[in-house]
Amino acid sequence: MVMKVHGSVLSTPAMRVLIALNEKGLEFEFVPVDMRAGEHKTEHFLALNPFGQVPAFEDGDLKLFESRAITQYIAHVYEDKGTPLVCEGKPMATVGVWMEVEAHQFDPVASKLQWELVLKPKFGMATDAAVVEENEAKLAKVLDIYEARLSQSKYLGCDCFTLAALHHLPALTNLMASPVKKLFDACPKVSAWVADIMARPALAKVLAMRNQQ
Amino acid sequence: MVMKVHGSVLSTPAMRVLIALNEKGLEFEFVPVDMRAGEHKTEHFLALNPFGQVPAFEDGDLKLFESRAITQYIAHVYEDKGTPLVCEGKPMATVGVWMEVEAHQFDPVASKLQWELVLKPKFGMATDAAVVEENEAKLAKVLDIYEARLSQSKYLGCDCFTLAALHHLPALTNLMASPVKKLFDACPKVSAWVADIMARPALAKVLAMRNQQ
Repeated sequence: MVMKVHGSVLSTPAMRVLIALNEKGLEFEFVPVDMRAGEHKTEHFLALNPFGQVPAFEDGDLKLFESRAITQYIAHVYEDKGTPLVCEGKPMATVGVWMEVEAHQFDPVASKLQWELVLKPKFGMATDAAVVEENEAKLAKVLDIYEARLSQSKYLGCDCFTLAALHHLPALTNLMASPVKKLFDACPKVSAWVADIMARPALAKVLAMRNQQ
Repeated sequence: MVMKVHGSVLSTPAMRVLIALNEKGLEFEFVPVDMRAGEHKTEHFLALNPFGQVPAFEDGDLKLFESRAITQYIAHVYEDKGTPLVCEGKPMATVGVWMEVEAHQFDPVASKLQWELVLKPKFGMATDAAVVEENEAKLAKVLDIYEARLSQSKYLGCDCFTLAALHHLPALTNLMASPVKKLFDACPKVSAWVADIMARPALAKVLAMRNQQ
Protein backbone atom coordinates (compact mmCIF):
# COMPACT_ATOMS: atom_id res chain seq x y z
CA MET A 1 0.00 0.00 0.00
CA VAL A 2 1.45 3.32 -1.09
CA MET A 3 1.98 6.11 1.45
CA LYS A 4 -0.53 8.95 1.42
CA VAL A 5 -0.01 12.64 2.17
CA HIS A 6 -3.22 14.59 2.78
CA GLY A 7 -2.69 18.32 2.40
CA SER A 8 -2.26 21.33 0.18
CA VAL A 9 0.91 22.14 -1.77
CA LEU A 10 0.45 25.74 -0.60
CA SER A 11 0.85 24.65 3.05
CA THR A 12 4.45 24.94 4.28
CA PRO A 13 4.10 22.02 6.74
CA ALA A 14 2.71 19.82 3.94
CA MET A 15 5.61 20.90 1.69
CA ARG A 16 8.06 19.78 4.41
CA VAL A 17 6.70 16.22 4.14
CA LEU A 18 6.58 16.25 0.33
CA ILE A 19 10.22 17.37 0.14
CA ALA A 20 11.28 14.59 2.55
CA LEU A 21 9.48 11.94 0.47
CA ASN A 22 11.15 13.24 -2.70
CA GLU A 23 14.60 13.29 -1.03
CA LYS A 24 14.02 9.62 -0.20
CA GLY A 25 12.72 8.84 -3.72
CA LEU A 26 9.67 7.17 -2.18
CA GLU A 27 6.41 6.63 -4.03
CA PHE A 28 3.40 8.31 -2.48
CA GLU A 29 -0.10 9.45 -3.27
CA PHE A 30 -0.93 13.10 -2.71
CA VAL A 31 -4.53 13.61 -1.54
CA PRO A 32 -5.47 17.29 -1.94
CA VAL A 33 -7.42 18.79 0.98
CA ASP A 34 -9.60 21.73 -0.05
CA MET A 35 -8.91 24.06 2.85
CA ARG A 36 -10.96 26.93 1.34
CA ALA A 37 -13.97 24.61 1.51
CA GLY A 38 -13.05 23.74 5.13
CA GLU A 39 -12.30 20.11 4.28
CA HIS A 40 -9.62 20.00 7.04
CA LYS A 41 -12.36 20.56 9.65
CA THR A 42 -14.59 17.68 8.46
CA GLU A 43 -15.06 14.51 10.49
CA HIS A 44 -13.19 12.51 7.85
CA PHE A 45 -10.08 14.70 8.13
CA LEU A 46 -10.28 15.08 11.92
CA ALA A 47 -9.96 11.28 12.14
CA LEU A 48 -6.54 11.73 10.51
CA ASN A 49 -5.54 14.82 12.55
CA PRO A 50 -7.75 15.84 15.48
CA PHE A 51 -6.23 19.35 15.36
CA GLY A 52 -7.65 19.85 11.85
CA GLN A 53 -4.37 20.94 10.29
CA VAL A 54 -2.57 19.72 7.18
CA PRO A 55 -0.66 17.57 6.50
CA ALA A 56 -1.87 14.19 7.64
CA PHE A 57 0.02 11.07 6.60
CA GLU A 58 -0.70 7.37 6.20
CA ASP A 59 1.75 4.51 5.79
CA GLY A 60 -0.37 1.35 5.74
CA ASP A 61 -2.33 1.35 8.99
CA LEU A 62 -0.06 3.94 10.63
CA LYS A 63 -1.60 7.42 10.72
CA LEU A 64 0.60 10.39 11.63
CA PHE A 65 0.32 14.18 11.75
CA GLU A 66 2.59 17.14 12.69
CA SER A 67 4.97 17.65 9.76
CA ARG A 68 8.24 17.32 11.73
CA ALA A 69 7.10 14.02 13.29
CA ILE A 70 6.27 12.71 9.80
CA THR A 71 9.63 13.74 8.30
CA GLN A 72 11.44 12.08 11.23
CA TYR A 73 9.43 8.90 10.70
CA ILE A 74 10.32 8.92 6.97
CA ALA A 75 14.01 9.64 7.71
CA HIS A 76 14.34 6.86 10.31
CA VAL A 77 12.12 4.11 8.87
CA TYR A 78 13.36 4.62 5.29
CA GLU A 79 16.95 5.28 6.42
CA ASP A 80 18.45 3.14 3.62
CA LYS A 81 16.59 4.91 0.78
CA GLY A 82 17.70 8.08 -1.05
CA THR A 83 19.33 10.95 0.85
CA PRO A 84 20.31 10.10 4.45
CA LEU A 85 18.41 12.82 6.33
CA VAL A 86 19.57 11.84 9.82
CA CYS A 87 22.83 10.54 11.26
CA GLU A 88 23.77 8.69 14.45
CA GLY A 89 25.18 9.50 17.91
CA LYS A 90 26.76 12.84 18.81
CA PRO A 91 26.51 14.44 15.32
CA MET A 92 22.76 13.68 15.41
CA ALA A 93 22.51 15.40 18.82
CA THR A 94 23.79 18.61 17.20
CA VAL A 95 21.48 18.17 14.21
CA GLY A 96 18.70 17.76 16.80
CA VAL A 97 19.61 21.12 18.36
CA TRP A 98 19.30 22.87 15.00
CA MET A 99 16.03 21.10 14.22
CA GLU A 100 14.68 22.58 17.47
CA VAL A 101 16.16 25.98 16.53
CA GLU A 102 14.22 25.86 13.24
CA ALA A 103 11.01 24.99 15.10
CA HIS A 104 11.31 27.45 18.00
CA GLN A 105 13.55 30.32 16.86
CA PHE A 106 13.20 30.52 13.06
CA ASP A 107 9.70 29.26 12.25
CA PRO A 108 7.61 31.47 14.60
CA VAL A 109 9.23 34.60 13.13
CA ALA A 110 9.22 33.27 9.55
CA SER A 111 5.52 32.36 9.87
CA LYS A 112 4.55 35.87 10.99
CA LEU A 113 6.52 37.41 8.10
CA GLN A 114 4.98 35.03 5.57
CA TRP A 115 1.51 35.88 6.86
CA GLU A 116 2.12 39.64 6.61
CA LEU A 117 4.12 39.75 3.37
CA VAL A 118 2.92 36.78 1.32
CA LEU A 119 -0.50 35.59 2.46
CA LYS A 120 -2.25 38.81 3.50
CA PRO A 121 -1.55 40.51 0.12
CA LYS A 122 -2.82 37.34 -1.62
CA PHE A 123 -6.08 37.56 0.36
CA GLY A 124 -6.41 41.32 -0.29
CA MET A 125 -5.66 42.15 3.35
CA ALA A 126 -3.41 45.02 4.50
CA THR A 127 0.10 44.20 5.75
CA ASP A 128 0.81 45.46 9.30
CA ALA A 129 4.08 47.40 8.98
CA ALA A 130 4.77 47.32 12.74
CA VAL A 131 4.52 43.51 12.86
CA VAL A 132 6.83 43.28 9.83
CA GLU A 133 9.38 45.62 11.43
CA GLU A 134 9.36 43.75 14.75
CA ASN A 135 9.76 40.35 13.10
CA GLU A 136 12.38 41.52 10.60
CA ALA A 137 14.48 42.61 13.59
CA LYS A 138 13.97 39.20 15.22
CA LEU A 139 14.81 37.35 12.00
CA ALA A 140 17.99 39.44 11.55
CA LYS A 141 19.16 38.29 15.02
CA VAL A 142 18.43 34.65 14.17
CA LEU A 143 20.32 34.98 10.87
CA ASP A 144 23.33 36.51 12.66
CA ILE A 145 23.50 33.34 14.78
CA TYR A 146 23.09 31.19 11.66
CA GLU A 147 25.93 33.15 9.99
CA ALA A 148 28.26 32.36 12.92
CA ARG A 149 27.19 28.72 13.02
CA LEU A 150 27.69 28.27 9.25
CA SER A 151 31.35 29.21 9.66
CA GLN A 152 31.69 26.05 11.81
CA SER A 153 29.92 23.53 9.55
CA LYS A 154 28.61 23.50 5.96
CA TYR A 155 25.00 23.03 7.11
CA LEU A 156 23.60 24.16 10.46
CA GLY A 157 23.92 20.90 12.36
CA CYS A 158 26.78 19.16 10.53
CA ASP A 159 28.50 18.97 7.14
CA CYS A 160 25.66 17.13 5.39
CA PHE A 161 22.17 18.09 4.29
CA THR A 162 19.74 16.72 6.93
CA LEU A 163 16.24 17.38 8.25
CA ALA A 164 17.64 20.49 10.02
CA ALA A 165 18.07 22.20 6.64
CA LEU A 166 15.09 20.53 4.96
CA HIS A 167 12.63 21.84 7.56
CA HIS A 168 13.56 25.43 6.63
CA LEU A 169 12.86 25.02 2.89
CA PRO A 170 9.12 25.74 2.65
CA ALA A 171 9.41 29.08 4.51
CA LEU A 172 12.54 30.00 2.54
CA THR A 173 10.73 29.59 -0.80
CA ASN A 174 8.25 32.24 0.39
CA LEU A 175 10.67 34.57 2.19
CA MET A 176 13.25 34.66 -0.61
CA ALA A 177 10.50 35.94 -2.95
CA SER A 178 9.58 38.70 -0.46
CA PRO A 179 11.25 41.95 0.69
CA VAL A 180 12.76 39.93 3.59
CA LYS A 181 15.30 38.53 1.09
CA LYS A 182 17.46 41.58 1.93
CA LEU A 183 18.09 40.16 5.43
CA PHE A 184 19.45 36.94 3.94
CA ASP A 185 21.51 38.86 1.35
CA ALA A 186 23.26 40.68 4.22
CA CYS A 187 24.72 37.37 5.51
CA PRO A 188 27.11 35.74 2.99
CA LYS A 189 27.32 32.31 4.61
CA VAL A 190 23.56 32.19 5.14
CA SER A 191 23.03 33.20 1.48
CA ALA A 192 25.34 30.41 0.27
CA TRP A 193 23.49 27.92 2.51
CA VAL A 194 20.10 29.08 1.22
CA ALA A 195 21.27 28.86 -2.42
CA ASP A 196 22.64 25.36 -1.78
CA ILE A 197 19.55 23.93 -0.10
CA MET A 198 17.10 25.67 -2.44
CA ALA A 199 18.83 23.92 -5.35
CA ARG A 200 17.75 20.46 -4.08
CA PRO A 201 15.93 18.58 -6.89
CA ALA A 202 13.44 17.34 -4.24
CA LEU A 203 12.31 20.95 -3.68
CA ALA A 204 12.04 21.57 -7.44
CA LYS A 205 9.68 18.57 -7.68
CA VAL A 206 7.43 19.98 -4.95
CA LEU A 207 7.43 23.45 -6.52
CA ALA A 208 6.49 21.84 -9.85
CA MET A 209 3.50 20.18 -8.10
CA ARG A 210 2.58 23.61 -6.77
CA ASN A 211 2.83 25.25 -10.20
CA GLN A 212 0.57 22.61 -11.74
CA GLN A 213 -2.25 23.69 -9.42
CA MET B 1 33.59 14.04 33.26
CA VAL B 2 30.13 14.55 34.75
CA MET B 3 27.38 16.12 32.63
CA LYS B 4 26.54 19.75 33.31
CA VAL B 5 23.20 21.55 33.12
CA HIS B 6 23.44 25.34 33.07
CA GLY B 7 20.15 26.96 34.00
CA SER B 8 17.64 27.98 36.62
CA VAL B 9 15.30 25.56 38.40
CA LEU B 10 12.55 28.15 37.85
CA SER B 11 12.91 27.78 34.06
CA THR B 12 10.48 25.24 32.60
CA PRO B 13 12.85 24.24 29.75
CA ALA B 14 15.67 23.68 32.28
CA MET B 15 13.28 21.59 34.43
CA ARG B 16 12.56 19.40 31.38
CA VAL B 17 16.24 18.45 31.18
CA LEU B 18 16.61 17.96 34.96
CA ILE B 19 13.58 15.61 35.03
CA ALA B 20 15.02 13.56 32.13
CA LEU B 21 18.38 13.19 33.92
CA ASN B 22 16.62 12.07 37.10
CA GLU B 23 14.44 9.58 35.19
CA LYS B 24 17.68 8.10 33.86
CA GLY B 25 19.34 8.15 37.28
CA LEU B 26 22.35 9.92 35.75
CA GLU B 27 24.82 11.97 37.76
CA PHE B 28 25.08 15.60 36.74
CA GLU B 29 26.28 18.95 37.97
CA PHE B 30 23.76 21.78 38.06
CA VAL B 31 25.34 25.16 37.28
CA PRO B 32 22.96 27.95 38.32
CA VAL B 33 22.62 30.83 35.85
CA ASP B 34 21.60 34.09 37.50
CA MET B 35 19.07 35.32 34.95
CA ARG B 36 18.06 38.36 37.04
CA ALA B 37 21.68 39.53 36.77
CA GLY B 38 21.57 38.85 32.99
CA GLU B 39 24.12 36.04 33.20
CA HIS B 40 22.44 34.26 30.26
CA LYS B 41 23.36 37.20 28.01
CA THR B 42 27.10 37.19 28.90
CA GLU B 43 29.77 36.09 26.44
CA HIS B 44 30.51 33.03 28.59
CA PHE B 45 26.92 31.80 28.40
CA LEU B 46 26.42 32.77 24.72
CA ALA B 47 29.29 30.39 23.90
CA LEU B 48 27.05 27.62 25.30
CA ASN B 49 23.83 28.87 23.69
CA PRO B 50 24.05 31.70 21.14
CA PHE B 51 20.33 32.44 21.68
CA GLY B 52 21.03 33.33 25.34
CA GLN B 53 18.37 31.04 26.78
CA VAL B 54 18.56 28.40 29.49
CA PRO B 55 19.23 25.53 29.66
CA ALA B 56 22.59 24.78 28.12
CA PHE B 57 24.10 21.32 28.51
CA GLU B 58 27.54 19.74 28.38
CA ASP B 59 28.46 16.08 28.15
CA GLY B 60 32.25 15.98 27.86
CA ASP B 61 33.12 18.09 24.82
CA LEU B 62 29.59 17.98 23.43
CA LYS B 63 27.66 21.21 24.01
CA LEU B 64 23.90 21.25 23.40
CA PHE B 65 20.99 23.65 23.90
CA GLU B 66 17.20 23.62 23.25
CA SER B 67 15.63 21.54 26.01
CA ARG B 68 13.84 19.01 23.79
CA ALA B 69 17.04 18.32 21.81
CA ILE B 70 18.87 17.70 25.11
CA THR B 71 16.20 15.31 26.48
CA GLN B 72 16.26 13.38 23.18
CA TYR B 73 20.05 13.10 23.38
CA ILE B 74 19.81 11.82 26.97
CA ALA B 75 17.02 9.37 26.05
CA HIS B 76 18.87 7.93 23.04
CA VAL B 77 22.50 7.94 24.20
CA TYR B 78 21.66 6.66 27.71
CA GLU B 79 18.93 4.32 26.41
CA ASP B 80 20.01 1.44 28.71
CA LYS B 81 19.91 3.51 31.93
CA GLY B 82 16.84 4.12 34.15
CA THR B 83 13.41 4.72 32.59
CA PRO B 84 13.23 4.01 28.81
CA LEU B 85 12.00 7.39 27.54
CA VAL B 86 11.84 6.45 23.86
CA CYS B 87 10.87 3.30 21.98
CA GLU B 88 11.57 1.97 18.47
CA GLY B 89 9.81 1.82 15.07
CA LYS B 90 6.11 2.59 14.59
CA PRO B 91 5.25 3.16 18.30
CA MET B 92 8.04 5.79 18.40
CA ALA B 93 6.52 7.48 15.33
CA THR B 94 3.31 8.02 17.31
CA VAL B 95 5.25 9.16 20.40
CA GLY B 96 6.99 11.59 18.00
CA VAL B 97 3.62 13.00 16.90
CA TRP B 98 2.64 13.72 20.53
CA MET B 99 6.05 15.24 21.27
CA GLU B 100 5.37 17.67 18.42
CA VAL B 101 1.84 18.27 19.76
CA GLU B 102 3.34 19.24 23.14
CA ALA B 103 5.76 21.63 21.43
CA HIS B 104 3.36 23.23 18.94
CA GLN B 105 -0.19 22.88 20.32
CA PHE B 106 0.17 22.68 24.12
CA ASP B 107 3.29 24.67 25.01
CA PRO B 108 2.53 27.98 23.22
CA VAL B 109 -0.83 28.22 25.02
CA ALA B 110 0.54 26.90 28.34
CA SER B 111 3.40 29.43 28.18
CA LYS B 112 1.04 32.38 27.72
CA LEU B 113 -1.12 31.20 30.64
CA GLN B 114 1.92 30.70 32.88
CA TRP B 115 3.14 34.20 32.03
CA GLU B 116 -0.24 35.80 32.82
CA LEU B 117 -1.24 33.72 35.85
CA VAL B 118 2.02 32.69 37.50
CA LEU B 119 4.89 34.96 36.47
CA LYS B 120 3.20 38.38 36.10
CA PRO B 121 1.69 38.22 39.65
CA LYS B 122 5.15 37.19 40.97
CA PHE B 123 6.70 40.27 39.33
CA GLY B 124 3.90 42.56 40.59
CA MET B 125 2.49 42.97 37.07
CA ALA B 126 -1.23 42.97 36.20
CA THR B 127 -2.70 39.87 34.55
CA ASP B 128 -4.42 40.56 31.20
CA ALA B 129 -7.86 38.96 31.54
CA ALA B 130 -8.51 38.95 27.78
CA VAL B 131 -5.28 37.03 27.08
CA VAL B 132 -6.20 34.54 29.84
CA GLU B 133 -9.70 34.04 28.42
CA GLU B 134 -8.44 33.54 24.86
CA ASN B 135 -5.78 31.03 25.91
CA GLU B 136 -8.06 29.16 28.34
CA ALA B 137 -10.41 28.57 25.39
CA LYS B 138 -7.48 27.32 23.29
CA LEU B 139 -6.22 25.07 26.11
CA ALA B 140 -9.72 23.61 26.62
CA LYS B 141 -9.74 22.56 22.94
CA VAL B 142 -6.31 20.95 23.26
CA LEU B 143 -7.40 19.09 26.41
CA ASP B 144 -10.55 17.80 24.63
CA ILE B 145 -8.27 16.21 22.04
CA TYR B 146 -6.02 14.82 24.82
CA GLU B 147 -9.13 13.37 26.54
CA ALA B 148 -10.10 11.50 23.34
CA ARG B 149 -6.52 10.33 22.76
CA LEU B 150 -6.14 9.07 26.35
CA SER B 151 -9.06 6.69 25.81
CA GLN B 152 -6.89 4.98 23.16
CA SER B 153 -3.63 4.64 25.13
CA LYS B 154 -2.55 5.12 28.78
CA TYR B 155 -0.17 7.95 27.86
CA LEU B 156 -0.54 10.25 24.84
CA GLY B 157 1.77 8.43 22.45
CA CYS B 158 1.64 4.85 23.74
CA ASP B 159 1.09 2.82 26.92
CA CYS B 160 4.38 3.79 28.58
CA PHE B 161 5.73 6.99 30.08
CA THR B 162 8.01 8.61 27.47
CA LEU B 163 9.41 12.03 26.55
CA ALA B 164 5.94 12.93 25.18
CA ALA B 165 4.58 13.02 28.75
CA LEU B 166 7.81 14.22 30.37
CA HIS B 167 7.97 17.36 28.22
CA HIS B 168 4.59 18.50 29.63
CA LEU B 169 5.64 18.24 33.30
CA PRO B 170 7.25 21.65 33.95
CA ALA B 171 4.23 23.60 32.61
CA LEU B 172 1.84 21.27 34.44
CA THR B 173 3.48 21.97 37.82
CA ASN B 174 2.69 25.66 37.27
CA LEU B 175 -0.74 25.32 35.66
CA MET B 176 -2.10 22.83 38.25
CA ALA B 177 -1.33 25.42 40.94
CA SER B 178 -3.25 28.12 39.01
CA PRO B 179 -6.95 28.78 38.24
CA VAL B 180 -6.43 26.89 34.97
CA LYS B 181 -6.56 23.63 36.99
CA LYS B 182 -10.35 23.74 36.48
CA LEU B 183 -9.86 22.97 32.76
CA PHE B 184 -7.92 19.82 33.61
CA ASP B 185 -10.48 18.83 36.30
CA ALA B 186 -13.20 18.90 33.61
CA CYS B 187 -11.48 16.05 31.70
CA PRO B 188 -11.36 12.80 33.72
CA LYS B 189 -8.82 10.93 31.59
CA VAL B 190 -6.58 14.00 31.35
CA SER B 191 -6.80 14.42 35.15
CA ALA B 192 -5.78 10.79 35.72
CA TRP B 193 -2.87 11.21 33.27
CA VAL B 194 -1.74 14.42 34.99
CA ALA B 195 -1.93 12.78 38.44
CA ASP B 196 0.05 9.79 37.17
CA ILE B 197 2.87 11.74 35.53
CA MET B 198 3.09 14.35 38.30
CA ALA B 199 3.72 11.49 40.76
CA ARG B 200 7.04 10.62 39.05
CA PRO B 201 9.86 10.58 41.66
CA ALA B 202 12.09 12.31 39.08
CA LEU B 203 9.79 15.35 39.17
CA ALA B 204 9.75 15.33 43.00
CA LYS B 205 13.56 15.52 42.96
CA VAL B 206 13.51 18.57 40.68
CA LEU B 207 10.81 20.29 42.77
CA ALA B 208 12.95 19.60 45.86
CA MET B 209 15.88 21.37 44.13
CA ARG B 210 13.53 24.28 43.43
CA ASN B 211 12.33 24.44 47.04
CA GLN B 212 15.90 24.54 48.32
CA GLN B 213 16.46 27.80 46.44
